[in-house]
Amino acid sequence: MDASCYESGKAVARANLAFYRAIEALDVDAMRAVWSTAPHAKCIHPGWELIAGTESILASWEAIFANTDSLCFDVADLEVEVLGDLAWVSNVEKIRSVVGDERYESEAVATNLFARENGVWKLILHHASPVSQH
Amino acid sequence: MDASCYESGKAVARANLAFYRAIEALDVDAMRAVWSTAPHAKCIHPGWELIAGTESILASWEAIFANTDSLCFDVADLEVEVLGDLAWVSNVEKIRSVVGDERYESEAVATNLFARENGVWKLILHHASPVSQH
Repeated sequence: MDASCYESGKAVARANLAFYRAIEALDVDAMRAVWSTAPHAKCIHPGWELIAGTESILASWEAIFANTDSLCFDVADLEVEVLGDLAWVSNVEKIRSVVGDERYESEAVATNLFARENGVWKLILHHASPVSQH
Repeated sequence: MDASCYESGKAVARANLAFYRAIEALDVDAMRAVWSTAPHAKCIHPGWELIAGTESILASWEAIFANTDSLCFDVADLEVEVLGDLAWVSNVEKIRSVVGDERYESEAVATNLFARENGVWKLILHHASPVSQH
């Protein structure tokens, strides 16, 4: 990996972290800042069908945030690949959530695809799937 | 989309179709021809953990093929995006399988990422997740 690619990889990792911090903050505005507004933006929550388009994606996060009291995402096994103005991240999400008096723990594996738009890495696809069997 | 991008989109769709035809043929050699040999190749079967590296990925398909008598994949809602030498496909997989006397039906949503290597689109990431709730 050459120096500029290494720098890109770090910038992508920061954008990826901002995505997870926006989830933990239950903050739709921070989430909006992370996402591309490209019409082909896509999001697949664990076990859900595909959601297309930034506004529908943000509405889905808003619904998740409204129904959750606390969300913690520990991100593990992070791998970043960069090719030109696209980058993709693979990581495991160790999720702890609180809804009312109930606490939940789950694990998902995620693919996050970023595009460099005007020098800024924006999320264009988030695909998370439950880890349930092997 | 300009003409060359349209041609790339068609080539990516063909590579994507070859991937599903290799599954239906239960053919590990055809599957090998579809995949990139890049060390960062990754595959996530529905509900599974991430598998990294082409040989491990092919071994997982070989295990699936060995334990299945018939696999049919109807692919729906196909969308192809191309940016430079990377392309990503979103589609729904309507899966019918036969194992012994048992027939199964399931649905998954898939992200397939392709890289153009020496002019040929090769699969570098397959992420399929079960559709179970919304």
